[in-house]
Amino acid sequence: MAFNDLLLKALNKEKTERPPVWLMRQAGRYMPEYMEVRKKVSFLELCKTPELACAVTLQPVDILGADAAILFSDILIPIEPIGVNLSFNPAPVISNPVRTMEDVNRLNHFNPESDAPFVYKTIDLLVKKLNVPLIGFSGAPFTLACYMTEGAGSKSFLEIRKMMLNTPDVFHSLMKKLTEDTIKYLQNQVKHGCAAIQMFDTWAGILPPAEYKEMVFPYVKEISESISAPFIYFAKDGSAYFDTIKELNCAGIGIDWKISLKEANVMLGSKFSLQGNLDPAILFSNKASIKKYAETAINEGKLCPGHIFNLGHGIMPATPVENVKYLIDVVKGLA
Amino acid sequence: MAFNDLLLKALNKEKTERPPVWLMRQAGRYMPEYMEVRKKVSFLELCKTPELACAVTLQPVDILGADAAILFSDILIPIEPIGVNLSFNPAPVISNPVRTMEDVNRLNHFNPESDAPFVYKTIDLLVKKLNVPLIGFSGAPFTLACYMTEGAGSKSFLEIRKMMLNTPDVFHSLMKKLTEDTIKYLQNQVKHGCAAIQMFDTWAGILPPAEYKEMVFPYVKEISESISAPFIYFAKDGSAYFDTIKELNCAGIGIDWKISLKEANVMLGSKFSLQGNLDPAILFSNKASIKKYAETAINEGKLCPGHIFNLGHGIMPATPVENVKYLIDVVKGLA
Repeated sequence: MAFNDLLLKALNKEKTERPPVWLMRQAGRYMPEYMEVRKKVSFLELCKTPELACAVTLQPVDILGADAAILFSDILIPIEPIGVNLSFNPAPVISNPVRTMEDVNRLNHFNPESDAPFVYKTIDLLVKKLNVPLIGFSGAPFTLACYMTEGAGSKSFLEIRKMMLNTPDVFHSLMKKLTEDTIKYLQNQVKHGCAAIQMFDTWAGILPPAEYKEMVFPYVKEISESISAPFIYFAKDGSAYFDTIKELNCAGIGIDWKISLKEANVMLGSKFSLQGNLDPAILFSNKASIKKYAETAINEGKLCPGHIFNLGHGIMPATPVENVKYLIDVVKGLA
Repeated sequence: MAFNDLLLKALNKEKTERPPVWLMRQAGRYMPEYMEVRKKVSFLELCKTPELACAVTLQPVDILGADAAILFSDILIPIEPIGVNLSFNPAPVISNPVRTMEDVNRLNHFNPESDAPFVYKTIDLLVKKLNVPLIGFSGAPFTLACYMTEGAGSKSFLEIRKMMLNTPDVFHSLMKKLTEDTIKYLQNQVKHGCAAIQMFDTWAGILPPAEYKEMVFPYVKEISESISAPFIYFAKDGSAYFDTIKELNCAGIGIDWKISLKEANVMLGSKFSLQGNLDPAILFSNKASIKKYAETAINEGKLCPGHIFNLGHGIMPATPVENVKYLIDVVKGLA
């Protein structure tokens, strides 16, 4: 079977017959085949066992027909070897949050190959088996720092806000360290065969826009310019920052469902391939509704330099799998 | 002491020497005087005991010098008498969520005076004592419906999304009922002496903009046009809807900290008094930082038809009270 390079064409702004489609968190708890694997191992064990991580990465490609695979892992995986005590319950918990300069200085040097060998082993296995592009990924430094300072998930992530306001030197030391590590982590993913990279900035949206621009965006830009594969930046709840984000020179921008693709494209200067942006809740409705919403996104995507069909955020755990399959079929013109 | 009508002037777009200042959740857990009262009663008891609700409403005016008082209550208070089993632990929990047409039809008729007599009694007590305007408030129907369908707080409020997508008739019946109740609830607050009304749409921001416009905004507009006092609408995370929200003809719009007042004013057609928008996290920093951020908001507020200084969301529980006092002094030109 010929290699399906739709994703790469769309990221390269080449005309495609239809948009490529993959879905954030497409390998996950909504799939019975995934749950079967998860019965045997914890989430962290799954991430760290290449054969199993490879198997679940392949599931949405083989079973649902996604046009791209995304490495099965978690954004917090690379912070464990630098000295962060990480567990999942199922939300992430960090028993030794990073809040002072001493905490930052205590973080270990990051050696991607020796610190996260399972990640690269998984990629090695996948590239041999896939006939669609493999997307590598990382968390963005700010989002990683949100968890590292808070020690858990949060609505307000007050600890990082306090650090930014009261000890900006500690904040910048941490961001610099995470930026360096992220570049190494991602460069190695590309070296092992990832054809594109997505960086998730899940919590960027908690900031006043001026602070995002001054204190966070420079690190995003540095990483985006250090990666040799097509790069997609996704800042959830980030539309307020589009005037800043449009300064990136990367291939794609992920768009959440809280703004239309049409408007996002205008705000971003019509220079990126846009990836998104179906509300994941739509997958809890019926076929007629899924089709209607998907077609809106497809039609608005045609106004953009490139369009990669995706959700505006990850698939939710209780999503009916037949609706996910139907959505993919709609984008492919099969339903 | 002369009545301080700065808030009303700012809502009326009259020139004022400085912006009036009050802070969302200004009566709350960060104040030792509030905690003293709360030692004796539960949160719900406090809301329902006029003498105590009156006392805590007055605290930020008397102790901190706020230019307006806001009725101490909770947005969920008026849904209890219509048949919703409500408790706080401290987050709201509803043991009988509303999900079907039968559930909606089972809701009681709402008689504000007999169903929430303590609210109006609190207002009666307050208007005799205050020499600043008293702001009444309610939740917006969509935000109330989010809690009523989910039965609790949530990040995604999937139940209301499913209702909107799969049984829109049930959704609209619920919204219609809540809109009627809210109008009655608020009209009576004005009758009892509230000088302005704020409606909180805390969860409106979870929707795709087209759905907000079609399915939620008409109810907001109806309420805003049914209230005879100056009306402030606050949709948290609502900047993506400004193109719709600017169709309101009310006095003020609340602005969160995720957009600048300057940009919000342009997007809203420069026709409203804007209320906001300091990031509540700034109150965890130092005086120099608080002053810098406050002055930015004050200066951007001068570009708006009117400006009411406030936070972009409620004061957080652990906020240092001396920083709140300092912020109010800065806005008043006293620090």
